[in-house]
Parts: sequence; C-alpha cells; structure tokens
Amino acid sequence: MTDRVSGAATDPVTGGLMQGFPPPPDKTLRMEDGSSWTFPNLRWAFSHQRELVPSVNVWRGRDAAVEFPRALRDDLDEIAFTTMDGEAMTWGQSVDVNCTDGILVLHKGVVIYEDYFGALERQIPHLAMSVTKSFVGVLAATLAHEGALDPTKLVPYYVPDLAGTAYGDATVRQVMDMTIGVQYSETYTDPDAQIWAYTAASGVTARPRDYGGPETIFDFLRSLRKQGEHGQAFAYKTCNTEVLAWIVQRATGVPIARMLSDKIWQKLGPEEDAYLLVDRIGTAMCGGGLNLTLRDLAKFGEMMRCDGAFNGHQVIPAAVVADTARGADRDHFAKSGYVTLPGWSYRNQFWVSHDKFGAYSARGIHGQAAWIAPGAEVVIARFASHPTAANGNGPLDRVSLPAYAAIAEHLLKT
Amino acid sequence: MTDRVSGAATDPVTGGLMQGFPPPPDKTLRMEDGSSWTFPNLRWAFSHQRELVPSVNVWRGRDAAVEFPRALRDDLDEIAFTTMDGEAMTWGQSVDVNCTDGILVLHKGVVIYEDYFGALERQIPHLAMSVTKSFVGVLAATLAHEGALDPTKLVPYYVPDLAGTAYGDATVRQVMDMTIGVQYSETYTDPDAQIWAYTAASGVTARPRDYGGPETIFDFLRSLRKQGEHGQAFAYKTCNTEVLAWIVQRATGVPIARMLSDKIWQKLGPEEDAYLLVDRIGTAMCGGGLNLTLRDLAKFGEMMRCDGAFNGHQVIPAAVVADTARGADRDHFAKSGYVTLPGWSYRNQFWVSHDKFGAYSARGIHGQAAWIAPGAEVVIARFASHPTAANGNGPLDRVSLPAYAAIAEHLLKT
Repeated sequence: MTDRVSGAATDPVTGGLMQGFPPPPDKTLRMEDGSSWTFPNLRWAFSHQRELVPSVNVWRGRDAAVEFPRALRDDLDEIAFTTMDGEAMTWGQSVDVNCTDGILVLHKGVVIYEDYFGALERQIPHLAMSVTKSFVGVLAATLAHEGALDPTKLVPYYVPDLAGTAYGDATVRQVMDMTIGVQYSETYTDPDAQIWAYTAASGVTARPRDYGGPETIFDFLRSLRKQGEHGQAFAYKTCNTEVLAWIVQRATGVPIARMLSDKIWQKLGPEEDAYLLVDRIGTAMCGGGLNLTLRDLAKFGEMMRCDGAFNGHQVIPAAVVADTARGADRDHFAKSGYVTLPGWSYRNQFWVSHDKFGAYSARGIHGQAAWIAPGAEVVIARFASHPTAANGNGPLDRVSLPAYAAIAEHLLKT
Repeated sequence: MTDRVSGAATDPVTGGLMQGFPPPPDKTLRMEDGSSWTFPNLRWAFSHQRELVPSVNVWRGRDAAVEFPRALRDDLDEIAFTTMDGEAMTWGQSVDVNCTDGILVLHKGVVIYEDYFGALERQIPHLAMSVTKSFVGVLAATLAHEGALDPTKLVPYYVPDLAGTAYGDATVRQVMDMTIGVQYSETYTDPDAQIWAYTAASGVTARPRDYGGPETIFDFLRSLRKQGEHGQAFAYKTCNTEVLAWIVQRATGVPIARMLSDKIWQKLGPEEDAYLLVDRIGTAMCGGGLNLTLRDLAKFGEMMRCDGAFNGHQVIPAAVVADTARGADRDHFAKSGYVTLPGWSYRNQFWVSHDKFGAYSARGIHGQAAWIAPGAEVVIARFASHPTAANGNGPLDRVSLPAYAAIAEHLLKT
C-alpha cells in the first residue's frame, strides 16, 4: 500500500487554519508568500480563493435555483473496488484518502449521495482548477455550432496578436483539442515548468520580489514559441485554453464571465453565482480559475448527460454534447503517455474514456472532477484538495477511476 | 457657478475603459499602479472592485429576493432647489453633476425613482465606501443590545492587542461614536494622511515598490498612537471602525462577513450577495470595503426607516434604530468643523442631521449614501463616482443635501 493522506486528519477547520482575528502566524495563509499553495493549507485555500486573489462574478441571474430530487442511499460507502495499485478499498475510504472537500452522486437525475468536508460548505464556491477548461470548451464548440466561430481558421484570424507565436499556424480546432506544438511544460512537480510562469503571470500564485516576467495572461501567451508540429499529438497544456478563451472573446466581443453567465450559467438554475479568478488587469483565468459550488457543478454535468437539455433550456446544442462525448483521435492521445488513462481521447476540453459507460469528464488537478457516465445514468461531481498535482490527477485516478466505475456498476444492478 | 463635472461626459463605457481583450494601455485600470483610483477611471472601478482586489462574500442566503412595489414618477427630475452655493438646479441636473452611478428613491416603501449610469447595472455591487461603517455600527449596537458587547468596557477588554495604543484607555462606546483622540488624519487631499497608509495596509490601493509599512489592517491598527483625549469631540476617522470590527469579531468569534450575512443580509431579502474587500491575510475592510447593489442598499435604508422591521424580520432591534436616529452630542460634532453639516451629530456610525425630517444617513466618499428620512417616509440610496473626496462629501453635500430636502418636501405635499 502506498502512503496515503487522510482528509479527516488534515481537516483545515480542526487544524485551525485562518481561524482568529488575526489567525496565528503559522496558520495564516497568503497568496503572496506561497503559503496558500502548500498542503494542507490548500484544504482551506481551495474554498476561499476570492479572499486571496481578485475575481470576476459569473452571475446566476434571478431565476429560482433548480432543486434536484433527493433519495440519499446508505449503501454506497461500503461498495468495494480494487485500486489500480491492487489495493482493496471501499467508496467511503476513497472519499477520505482523496482529501475530498465535497462529493455528490446523481443517478438518473436524483441526488443519492452528497457530503462536504473541511472548509467547504454547500453555498461556498470551490476552485475547480482545469474543470474550468471544459466550460470554455463547450462555449467554443457552441459558438462553432452557431457559426460564430470557425474551427478551421488559423488562430491569428481571430487574434492577430498571436501571429509569430506558437499559435501563428495553428487552427482553432487544434487549440480546442490540444494538439498544439508549443514549448510549454505542464509538469507541476517541476518548479521551472511554464505552468508556474503562467500562474505567476496570472497573479494567482506568488511572484518573487524581483519578478520580471509577463504581467498579464495575454503577455504570457504572446511569449509562447512553437515546438514540434500541430495536429500530431494530444499534449495537455493550459496555455491552449487561455488562447481559446482569447479567441472566443475576440470573436464575440463579450468578456468570458458574461458569456458564461448568459449562455450557460443562468440557464442551469444554479444555487449560487460562480466566479473566475482574474489577473492584474482583470482578465479571467480560463485555464483553471473557475470557482463554483458542488451542486452547481453537478448541474453542469447533468446537463451534459442529458444531451445539453436542463431546466427547460437546451443549454448546449445536443450536437455539441454528442461531438464531445464521441471524443477524438485515441492515437493522438496515446502519445501523451497517461498510464492511468489507456485508450482515452480529448475533445472540446473534455477527457473521454471510451469505456463501457461512455464516460467522459471535466478534470482538474488536486482532484476536481465532473464525471459523466451516460451509459449508467450517473454523474459524479467532486471537489478535493489532495496534496499532489503530480502527473495530472494520476495518483488520484488510481483510486478514483476504479471507484467511479464500481459506483456505476453497482447502480446499473440496483 | 463652480466648475462642475458631468456624469454623462465621463461615462466609463462610452469612454472605453476596460473594453477589449486586452483594453488599450491607456484604458487599462490596475490597482497596483494607482490607475483605478483616479478620475474618471473610478467611474469604472467603483462597480468592479472585486476584479481589482481580493474580497469575501456576504452571502444572501436562499430565500427569494424582496421586490419593492414600484410606481415610478416622472415629476422628480424637474424638482427645483438651490444649492448651498446659491445655484438654481433641478433634481435631474443634480444626478448628473454628482456623477451618479445609481440612484433609487423610496417613498412609503414604494420605488418612485430608479436609474443606473456608467458601469453600474442593477445586479452589480458598487463600492459603498464608508457606508460600510453604518453596517458595522448597527451590528455593534445590536450586539450591545443583546448583551454580547459592553460599550462601557475599555477596548483592551476585548482586544488586548490594542493595549498601549491610542485605544488602550478608550471605551467601546467612544469607538462606536468616533470620539477618539488618535493621531490619524482623514484628509483625503493630503497624500501623507494616515487614511492612505490605512488603504495601503489594507491592500486596496497601490503600495510603492519599496513599501515597508504595515502588511495588514491589524498591524496598522496596532501602530496608532494617542493624540488628545477621548470622549471630548467627534472626529471622523476610519481607523475607529476597523477597531470596532476587531472588537465585535473578538467578542463573538464570528468573522464579520458571516456575522453580517447571518444577522442582517439574509434577513433583508437582498437581490444579490454583497462582498467586502479584504487585506492580504483575508481580513475584511470594515471601514469602507462593502460592495452591494443599489436596491439592496435601499432595503437596508428602508429597514432602518421601519424601525428595524423588514421582510417579516425584526432585523435590527427597534431600540437600536431609535438610539441611532436620536443621534449623539451635537457640541461634540460641531468641533469637527463640517460647514455643510451644521447641528449634526454622529451615533453608531451614522450621520444624524437633526432636521425636520429626522433624517440620518450612511455616507461614503465620492457620493455613496443611504439617506433615511422617517419624517417624510423617504429613503434615498445613491452610488456615485464623483471626482472629489475632499472634505468628506462636502462638495457633493452642497448639492445633494438641498436636493434630498427638496425631494422630501415635494413628497410631503404630493
């Protein structure tokens, strides 16, 4: 058995993080000194991002919130499965070892399991990390479906500023599916990886006192250079989503926070406003800056499971959902070398498993997920603050993916 | 006639502020370089504070929003009055020259006038500046009424950290009514005044690159030294409200954003969440950091006008409202020398006019106000982004106070 952390043992409330006026120095978290970005501090920080970083509201509108039917079941916690490491585990145990902050299971549109831990509460938006990308992805795919965006165009057609960069000869579709050849590393365990230059430029992680790097997300994107060829292989790089967001904002003239509110959020009947972290000139961080409540994430997942129809709205065109769920080139994906994701592909900023449930998902590091399994009529929404971001969600996947499959199997039978 | 600005001529939307991806450099506003704190840029910035500075949510809860009855009247714009400078003006003109962002007039609980300008929209929270203080004031007065706070105690009884500072021998009541002798200048036109040291410590205005001042609001408060005596004169100083917020948080153990949500906000049936700007360790800025929508500010004012009862709740004890409206020592107030506010007093962080309407108000620089006139059954909520913060709201008062009185007189007759 690998060394496991425990959600209960690292609870930020019992641990006294950010409690008191002021909190004790060793329990005080700041963005500027990096303390909010270390474990276990991120167990508090992921539920309080706007208190650390400027943000822009994603307005829920004025309609009443959709209430899911509820029929909580007590048989899920004991569901047994075997992790990818060969360890026997129950669902209940998996919730703890993943440092889960919130988890909700929908079966046929009914809430059958819902729980909150640590600093998260029902009404608090949690950092969704790269789950953000999937929202941007379906927005872009919807605009393409509506004819407002042409995926065959080269990026500079919409964003001339990116001529001469890695994106000068890339198509919008290649950006949407992340088959871009760009010199950019997403290796979270490498402090010199460009992912950290991106977060520093975005202003969401600490900048050194003598920081001389890009001041904004746009400045950072303009600095990216080509490496390899486009359209040959899937390579998961957050910069691509930022480029996609730039494209859709230039194509429409509408800021992404308002576009997201108008085209998706208001139609979902969310319980709460969502928000996006912004850089120092107010640009929304579209690669990982979305914060939303657990129930509202579940609504997004359920909308996708229901072919885009939810709350009396065709929120996303059914054709866009089908195109997403169908996935993309699995050979392209295989080149990315994710050992926990064999046979998967990536389409419209979603991860597509091609498994027996037709499952596809929005995924974010440290354990954020919307897992959509049409074949089992199941949606799982999860927020977590697991210590590792290593290898994407690799370490969590070794537990979570078998756990999700076990839940789906169980629900198919009962 | 004095030189007047015009709201219409400085509209931030037609002026192109923060429009585009990215906006043009000369239309890009940042907190860090001070550009968001200059006129006309603040006409955009006051409606977008959370995009510039971290903030904490003040949750509205899950109840439906209260809808005021509406009977808009078209006779108000032509109401004539004379400014304190002897200038003839109409109400409609006064809205423009005050660089109004939003204004709403309630008469007997009915909306008779409502308009938005510039960057403000109905659902957008606007910076309320020192209107914030009045929320903190009634919270503290309510806690005192409930016995959870003793106004006769010395400040260090609740906040031992303030022993040895200006507040070491001040009572809580003296803090509530701002009769504190403390070396602190609120002169906004003086760049060396402590008000700017306070905003820099709070992280809401630019810090010089070599900044070596207090890192947090609490650090700043601990640095304050006594000057003069307590209890002798009203002296409007924002630091007092921060001390009061520290006291109520220590007395209750509840962070102010949650206290405000639980005790006031959720009961008002607001349309939107409010928020408080926070410093770099997440401490809410209680002297001026509240942002809320215009309609929700009107609800707060109407609740006060109705003796604390609103939306089926006794939100604030009637005794607290009465104690506030009754005001405090007018001789103490006179020593502060506000030429536009003759015969006024200051109680529980409200400005009390002692006029024929029994009007009292929450006031913030650049034109924020909730004007509550029980004698005329009128409440006026106003947000603005007027260029000057000189002398409190002095320049605006010379227009606004006669304008409000004219409205009240008119409504008494019609």
